[in-house]
Amino acid sequence: MLVIKVGGSEGIDYEVVCDDLAMLVRAGRRMVLVHGGSFRTNEVATALGHPPHFVTSPSGYTSRYTDRATLKIFEMVYCGEMNKGLVESLQQRDVNAIGLSGIDGRLWEGPRKQAIRAVANGRTRIIRDNLTGKVERVNTALLNALLDGGYLPVLTPPAISYDGEAINVDGDRAAAATAVALRATDLLILSNVPGVLRDFPDEASLIPDIAAADIDHVTQTNTAGRMRIKLLGAGEALAGGVARVVLGDARGDRPLQRALAGEGTVLRP
Amino acid sequence: MLVIKVGGSEGIDYEVVCDDLAMLVRAGRRMVLVHGGSFRTNEVATALGHPPHFVTSPSGYTSRYTDRATLKIFEMVYCGEMNKGLVESLQQRDVNAIGLSGIDGRLWEGPRKQAIRAVANGRTRIIRDNLTGKVERVNTALLNALLDGGYLPVLTPPAISYDGEAINVDGDRAAAATAVALRATDLLILSNVPGVLRDFPDEASLIPDIAAADIDHVTQTNTAGRMRIKLLGAGEALAGGVARVVLGDARGDRPLQRALAGEGTVLRP
Repeated sequence: MLVIKVGGSEGIDYEVVCDDLAMLVRAGRRMVLVHGGSFRTNEVATALGHPPHFVTSPSGYTSRYTDRATLKIFEMVYCGEMNKGLVESLQQRDVNAIGLSGIDGRLWEGPRKQAIRAVANGRTRIIRDNLTGKVERVNTALLNALLDGGYLPVLTPPAISYDGEAINVDGDRAAAATAVALRATDLLILSNVPGVLRDFPDEASLIPDIAAADIDHVTQTNTAGRMRIKLLGAGEALAGGVARVVLGDARGDRPLQRALAGEGTVLRP
Repeated sequence: MLVIKVGGSEGIDYEVVCDDLAMLVRAGRRMVLVHGGSFRTNEVATALGHPPHFVTSPSGYTSRYTDRATLKIFEMVYCGEMNKGLVESLQQRDVNAIGLSGIDGRLWEGPRKQAIRAVANGRTRIIRDNLTGKVERVNTALLNALLDGGYLPVLTPPAISYDGEAINVDGDRAAAATAVALRATDLLILSNVPGVLRDFPDEASLIPDIAAADIDHVTQTNTAGRMRIKLLGAGEALAGGVARVVLGDARGDRPLQRALAGEGTVLRP
């Protein structure tokens, strides 16, 4: 079992990703795809007059401030344009993809954060209308039924809270929770960088291997915002029994096969 | 088996629709919901600087001109905002809804129209870049598996062409095809009018019953654009074995139960 997360950042050619995915499907790999949509959400939100706003937690993690209006735009892009675009691209390659969000069939369930602390200009504020949370439960019965039926599940945030509210969750950590729940051997988290960089954005400073025990140390010294949360997700996956996480590059030819071959930053327990 | 289509027109309170749907689910009805999103698509398309454009066929049916940019906006609204909004509302009522478009798992498959003829100002034009078509095949194996698993399928256009392209299809006719494929006894098609009106928009001129043999005659004398295609869908459902179609009102309290009780225009073979 293989879980693949392809990030929603700029510069990713999803047609190339789908070509590679179709090859793996034809080779008989049992897989789930998780995708993001952050870059396009920023564009659409700005075009609709509700520009994006990000908050940084005291521990240094950055996330999208998600009020109700933002959540609707988020769903338009993640569940509409991005998810159906990927499903269509895969269908054109004879992959019988099914796109689902975490609220469909309570696929990704977890607690909503009642309040978050956000740091700006050295001051900490409490934000209460933020529709965010994290995935604690994965509907593996639904995913396994779809996989057994020959479908490729294509999953996207939002998730659903225990109270039935749509909540924005981090896609990397949702992919990690999915990998753990499905007892995946491998989790690939691909974005628009080659992996974890010692000196971001110097791509020559790629760290090829990280042991689980060293993740905290690397996170503390790696200040590039998005990679911190990917490392957090990677650590959660390894702690939950996934044998290997690869933080790889979604750009260029055959990005999935290159990550499977160990290109990028490989993390092991 | 019951298939319910709730239109995407203005003035429908989807929270009320979901209340009623939840009651029917608790009463043990086996159901599929199909929804539209036309009104919101017009609003979002206009806000994004790509305002809607409609074409009228020589036989008098009006449809959305769907180029690639329109299709993306269409997917944002139908598959994103509308579908996930309904799924969330149903989940909050303890209905385990799963939202799918017709491209997911090739749920709604059919031919893309290679060219359409459009009439404007008395002249006929040929349009070739229109991504539209119709549903000929329904993935009943997927729908029945979800229904057997206790899920409520919540379905929305687009459909998928035999070549794997997303195509805009009429939601009423897609609901009719779904009702036929699932051997539904009843199909409810609800919108923001009380049913078929002899003198649109005079709601007192409601036609309470139409026999299948009279649909063509009513269609020819009923010039209100959207009702023509609903009648076409109703006729297709009856011809395919559905015992009763009700064209009813989605507005007001308990709209589904009122339509099931025969309120609206009832069509029988």
